[in-house]
Amino acid sequence: MFASQPIAYVHSPYSETSAIPKGMGAKHEAEGIIEVLREFEPGLKDIEGFSHLYIIWEFDRAGEFSLSATVPTDPNRSHGVFATRSPRRPNPLGLTVVELLRREGTTLHVRGLDMLDRTPVLDIKPYLSSIPMEKLRRGWLAEAEQAGKV
Amino acid sequence: MFASQPIAYVHSPYSETSAIPKGMGAKHEAEGIIEVLREFEPGLKDIEGFSHLYIIWEFDRAGEFSLSATVPTDPNRSHGVFATRSPRRPNPLGLTVVELLRREGTTLHVRGLDMLDRTPVLDIKPYLSSIPMEKLRRGWLAEAEQAGKV
Repeated sequence: MFASQPIAYVHSPYSETSAIPKGMGAKHEAEGIIEVLREFEPGLKDIEGFSHLYIIWEFDRAGEFSLSATVPTDPNRSHGVFATRSPRRPNPLGLTVVELLRREGTTLHVRGLDMLDRTPVLDIKPYLSSIPMEKLRRGWLAEAEQAGKV
Repeated sequence: MFASQPIAYVHSPYSETSAIPKGMGAKHEAEGIIEVLREFEPGLKDIEGFSHLYIIWEFDRAGEFSLSATVPTDPNRSHGVFATRSPRRPNPLGLTVVELLRREGTTLHVRGLDMLDRTPVLDIKPYLSSIPMEKLRRGWLAEAEQAGKV
């Protein structure tokens, strides 16, 4: 067990949850900044060589968790929280792939943010591989898309 | 800030770190089990519809963090920890994409494990999208591969 500690904060255009494009198929093109705390700057060495990064962050305003989630993509059914990206998770962890546009010291300029402004970031990792789309099944989300709900 | 709590444990073939294929380009084909704690079972509803899952887990045996990391893929240079998958991170979070082979109640049979046996799992999310390989830059790792070190 460990206690989470922010290594950075997000500066995004979203000050309210309602402004964030919702649903697992939503396009996230928002640009913004991930401002890394000065004490962690040495941890960024060589990060500018990667085009995409995983950002693991904390849902710091999500409230209590619920194992059952109803999400905007499929509003008439509930799913298990681990089959969704609902913010109300047992460990309030969010995961976003962003495109790294450029780095200036402790400032990472990125595209693809879907977090609220001032969200604490817990980890940054290089994004390396991908599963080919033809090998991917997307469960209830694909059903909801086919039903024309998305 | 939150205190991490396990929602599941990994049962993998790896009882020692030295047995895990290393490096960011390593293939992880190990099959094993993610055993979800009974109290979290309702959170798994509909997860069997997804072919791949993100597993966020805790490096529970990694020791103190270091902002500088030297990794097996590129042994003669150091990189910032956030440009690597080194286990010694400020927040000891691991991230693995696994293929979900089948679910039996609280037992997820998966392929692609790269964690030690008995590793605590903090979150499970559906894996949905991918960045096309032609849009991906892989920084120092690509250099190390070209130099024939991998």
